[in-house]
Amino acid sequence: MDILSIIEAKKLGKALSREQIRFFARGAGDGSIPDYQLAALLMAIRLNGMDARETADLTMEMAESGNMLYPDVGGVPVDKHSTGGVGDTTTLILAPLVAACGGKVLKMSGRGLGHTGGTVDKMESIPGMRVELPEDEFMDIVRRTGCAVVGQSAHLAPADKTLYALRDVTGTVDSIPLIASSILSKKFAAGARAIVLDVKCGSGALMPTLDSAVNLARTMVEIGAHAGRQIIAVVSGMDEPLGSHVGNALEVKEAVDVLSLRTGGPLKDVALFLGAQMLVAAGVQPDEKAAFAALEEALQSGRGLQKLKEMIAAQGGDPSVCDDVALLPQAPVIRSVPALEAGWLEKVDGVALGLAAQQMGAGRIRKGDEIDPAVGFVMNIRMGDPVQPGDSICTLYARTPESADAAEQRIRAALTFSREKTAPARLLHALVTPQGVTYL
Amino acid sequence: MDILSIIEAKKLGKALSREQIRFFARGAGDGSIPDYQLAALLMAIRLNGMDARETADLTMEMAESGNMLYPDVGGVPVDKHSTGGVGDTTTLILAPLVAACGGKVLKMSGRGLGHTGGTVDKMESIPGMRVELPEDEFMDIVRRTGCAVVGQSAHLAPADKTLYALRDVTGTVDSIPLIASSILSKKFAAGARAIVLDVKCGSGALMPTLDSAVNLARTMVEIGAHAGRQIIAVVSGMDEPLGSHVGNALEVKEAVDVLSLRTGGPLKDVALFLGAQMLVAAGVQPDEKAAFAALEEALQSGRGLQKLKEMIAAQGGDPSVCDDVALLPQAPVIRSVPALEAGWLEKVDGVALGLAAQQMGAGRIRKGDEIDPAVGFVMNIRMGDPVQPGDSICTLYARTPESADAAEQRIRAALTFSREKTAPARLLHALVTPQGVTYL
Repeated sequence: MDILSIIEAKKLGKALSREQIRFFARGAGDGSIPDYQLAALLMAIRLNGMDARETADLTMEMAESGNMLYPDVGGVPVDKHSTGGVGDTTTLILAPLVAACGGKVLKMSGRGLGHTGGTVDKMESIPGMRVELPEDEFMDIVRRTGCAVVGQSAHLAPADKTLYALRDVTGTVDSIPLIASSILSKKFAAGARAIVLDVKCGSGALMPTLDSAVNLARTMVEIGAHAGRQIIAVVSGMDEPLGSHVGNALEVKEAVDVLSLRTGGPLKDVALFLGAQMLVAAGVQPDEKAAFAALEEALQSGRGLQKLKEMIAAQGGDPSVCDDVALLPQAPVIRSVPALEAGWLEKVDGVALGLAAQQMGAGRIRKGDEIDPAVGFVMNIRMGDPVQPGDSICTLYARTPESADAAEQRIRAALTFSREKTAPARLLHALVTPQGVTYL
Repeated sequence: MDILSIIEAKKLGKALSREQIRFFARGAGDGSIPDYQLAALLMAIRLNGMDARETADLTMEMAESGNMLYPDVGGVPVDKHSTGGVGDTTTLILAPLVAACGGKVLKMSGRGLGHTGGTVDKMESIPGMRVELPEDEFMDIVRRTGCAVVGQSAHLAPADKTLYALRDVTGTVDSIPLIASSILSKKFAAGARAIVLDVKCGSGALMPTLDSAVNLARTMVEIGAHAGRQIIAVVSGMDEPLGSHVGNALEVKEAVDVLSLRTGGPLKDVALFLGAQMLVAAGVQPDEKAAFAALEEALQSGRGLQKLKEMIAAQGGDPSVCDDVALLPQAPVIRSVPALEAGWLEKVDGVALGLAAQQMGAGRIRKGDEIDPAVGFVMNIRMGDPVQPGDSICTLYARTPESADAAEQRIRAALTFSREKTAPARLLHALVTPQGVTYL
């Protein structure tokens, strides 16, 4: 077998065999195939596609290009992955809730880059919190408390690491088989047996249209069927930030507020919807209805908040932030942004809002940049809400007055008001399971 | 401008602008664009194509990625290029004939690799012959004698050098825009203003079908129209070796035999046909008929042979080989291969014959291999010829008896005889000029 014949086959639109896929995935993982040949193959895959069987094979072979973990956590290891949103703190809500219901949540998260935040960055705003844990300690925490959230392990799925970096510089990011196999290979290598995916759609999302998002969701669910994993995908909108809080400590605060029953809204609704799918996928609850009831009970009884405290403590953090959110990092400049005219909020440029937070210091412009955990903003209105002149649109939490000024300008530019009544944003678009697609 | 946006554009099937093409051709030439990005772009070009304007721009930009020569040779510099055949010695016949008719033949040739021979290898079988000449000496010989044949200059069209090497290892050889621009960029850089192309078609040729060969021919003629060069393309068959002689010194001998009026046949016919196109393309003769008459006169009068002697002498070779071909390197083992049964020669596997010569030592298996100028074989029958048992099929010129044995087996396996009368091979299929395609 040689790489050139594999490139030639895909160039001609042929399906690659498992052995051909293994050959190039191993070669990408161990560095034995030069980047230029992988780049040509990636472009051929981008343009000629891969069928469901090939995509599943690529996922498994990328997973098996490095260590495979087989975690013994006293249950079906379940993970959740989002393709990236703004103000999306579902993980910090659903991980403890699912754990409180008997799930074993094995969550490896990324760091934020560009306009989207990263769960491990948010966690690090909790004093003392450790997110880079050795695998055995990670597994031990999941076994004891039912959940842990850590950074992506660097040595899992090395083939994906190589191909992901190459895709970024060769115009081959936007390939559904390559996106799907990249996401799932790391999950498979980390030992997840049940996975719930939150595929965002809308302007600024990885998948701009509902159709493309459903396609990606379906592809990943099919990979699960081929690979013997329980995979359920939810397609959700990102027309505006999911929660009202954008920024690292601010998002932790909002998650604590939800678990403390101080707030609700779309963030809580989506977190519970995803959490219910996790309980079903892991076989902890027989169906969505039973799963919802279990989650609601864990939330109302305070067992979810208690589980978050346990997890924070197990990862070296200070659990008292859950009792007093003022212990989280605080920004020195706090300022309200008032509406200038009456109207209804019609449209939100979510990407622009994410970039506004990034510019305040909440996100990274380049990999490795330091982030400021305290800064960000809280939106006080959502799409469809009416405003009068002087009403507070949002509250800024900035490091300096100049940063607040710049953020105010960016946020104002990201919002479109109408003189007529407008509709709220759609949150949940579709649920994709091995049984098919249900539009919600 | 950045390379990623260029890759993205071609991935989406858009036409690239002249500026975009310049950016990546320069970057390929000076090494500032990494191989993996060029490889992705080449695959996108292979799969999404390039239109005539883009292909012409790529040709010019690859040519201009290094030195451009503007030869002052006292006339329109004319070149001829073949996509590679077996037993194809037309250059050594037509260069002196065209020069004898007033043309200025500026011929840069490649070395042989695989089953096809290279003109400069053939020339080196003439004692003393120098084929690696400085550019000014090369031009001076063309100015004085009307023709010179030298090896490809390494520093012309450096972008082509990079892309050619990458195509070979990324499955992107079979792209008509990339083939056409690669061939012509070197010719443009070397200063040719009129170019005649011999595009071979048939099994073992770069273009296997007549359609694909006509497409390549048409693409190159269109590049000429865009770039202000006179380009004419001939599509010819390579169902069997063009001349009867295969091997380096043997092919020089056959060229001398044609110019000495000792032999004729398809090799002479094709050489004169291509030579006539060169005289027309360079504007030396007004039309094909006048060009043929001039060439025929140069041949019959012996002025063509005289010109070959002048060129050999100018390049340091011994011109007396033209008077006594026995001065060329001679093989120690000469043996006739007899027919075993009666029949007609029906089919010839030209690639297999080329490989048989290569195995005898006439060609290279790897770049840089030494070649044996004396060895090869002479076919004594052509397609459509009848044979009786014992008739000589071919004559072997080998280094050792073992080599002759192996060659005999390979040559026998390459020939298919029929019990019924068969047809001779088609030589000339089509003529492609800026006015259109004429099937011959």
